[in-house]
Amino acid sequence: MPTLYFEDMEIGRIQNFGSYKVTKEEMLDFAGKYDPQSFHTDEEAAKKSVFGALCTSGWHTGAMTMSMLVANMKATGFASLGSPGLDNLNWKLPVFAGDVLSVQNELIEKRESKSRPNLGLVKIKQKTLNQKGETVMELTANAMVAKRPV
Amino acid sequence: MPTLYFEDMEIGRIQNFGSYKVTKEEMLDFAGKYDPQSFHTDEEAAKKSVFGALCTSGWHTGAMTMSMLVANMKATGFASLGSPGLDNLNWKLPVFAGDVLSVQNELIEKRESKSRPNLGLVKIKQKTLNQKGETVMELTANAMVAKRPV
Repeated sequence: MPTLYFEDMEIGRIQNFGSYKVTKEEMLDFAGKYDPQSFHTDEEAAKKSVFGALCTSGWHTGAMTMSMLVANMKATGFASLGSPGLDNLNWKLPVFAGDVLSVQNELIEKRESKSRPNLGLVKIKQKTLNQKGETVMELTANAMVAKRPV
Repeated sequence: MPTLYFEDMEIGRIQNFGSYKVTKEEMLDFAGKYDPQSFHTDEEAAKKSVFGALCTSGWHTGAMTMSMLVANMKATGFASLGSPGLDNLNWKLPVFAGDVLSVQNELIEKRESKSRPNLGLVKIKQKTLNQKGETVMELTANAMVAKRPV
C-alpha cells in the first residue's frame, strides 16, 4: 500500500468511512469511568432530562470517532504525525444506544510547516453522522502530516 | 449543599480541583479501544516518535479531565445541563504514565439564553495541568446552566 504524504493531499477531497455500533453496555462503561452525569448513567433520570433518553458522553462520541479515523488512516496509509488540537467542536445531537456512527471528512486547508521542513499542517472538517445521516458531532481538526522523503 | 445556579456564577472566578493518576494500564486500554496509533500502544515505537515515550490519546486526556469536572460539579452543586461544544481545544504537551493531572477553570463569559428562559450559557476556559504545573490540554467550553427556580 502506498503511503499518503502531505504532497498527496488535495484540498476539497471528501472521504466517507467507518461504521460503529453504539451499545448501551459500552456507553455505561465509558460514563461510569469518565462522565457519570445522570443522563449518561441512569435511564430513568435520562428520560426526564433535556435528552429524553440515555445518551452517551460527548467524549465517548469523540473517542468512537477517533477509532474510525485511525482505522481509516491505516487503511489509506495516511502519514499522520498526530494532532495539536481542534479549532472548534460541536455536539449537535445526542447519541443513543443502537445508533450506528460513521465519519465524513473534508480537507479544507494545507500549508507547509515553517519550523519543521519535514512536515505539513492540514485542517480537516470532520462530521460524525448517525444512521439517519444526521450530524451528531462536528469539528475542525488540525493535523501534522509527514512530507514525502527526498 | 446549596445548588450553584446561573445567577450564582461570577465572571473571573477561578477554581482549581482534581487529582487523576495516569496509569500505563489505563492508557493502553483506552488506546486499544479508541486510538491505536503506535505512539499510544507500542513503547518501542513511541520512543522513536516525536513524543519520545508512550503517551496517552488526547481523547483520553479529555475523558480524564471530564471525570474531574463531573466530580467537581457534584461537589459544588453546579447546576449544569450539559455542553453544546467547545470553541477550541489544544493538546499542548504529551501525557505520560505516572503523570498526575488536575484542572484549572476560569469563568470568562455568561449570558441568558434567548430561546430558553430557564437557563443561561457560560464560557469556561479550562486547563488540564500535570504534576509540574504544565498545561497539557487547554480548551474553552460552552455550558448550559439552570437558572434559579422562581
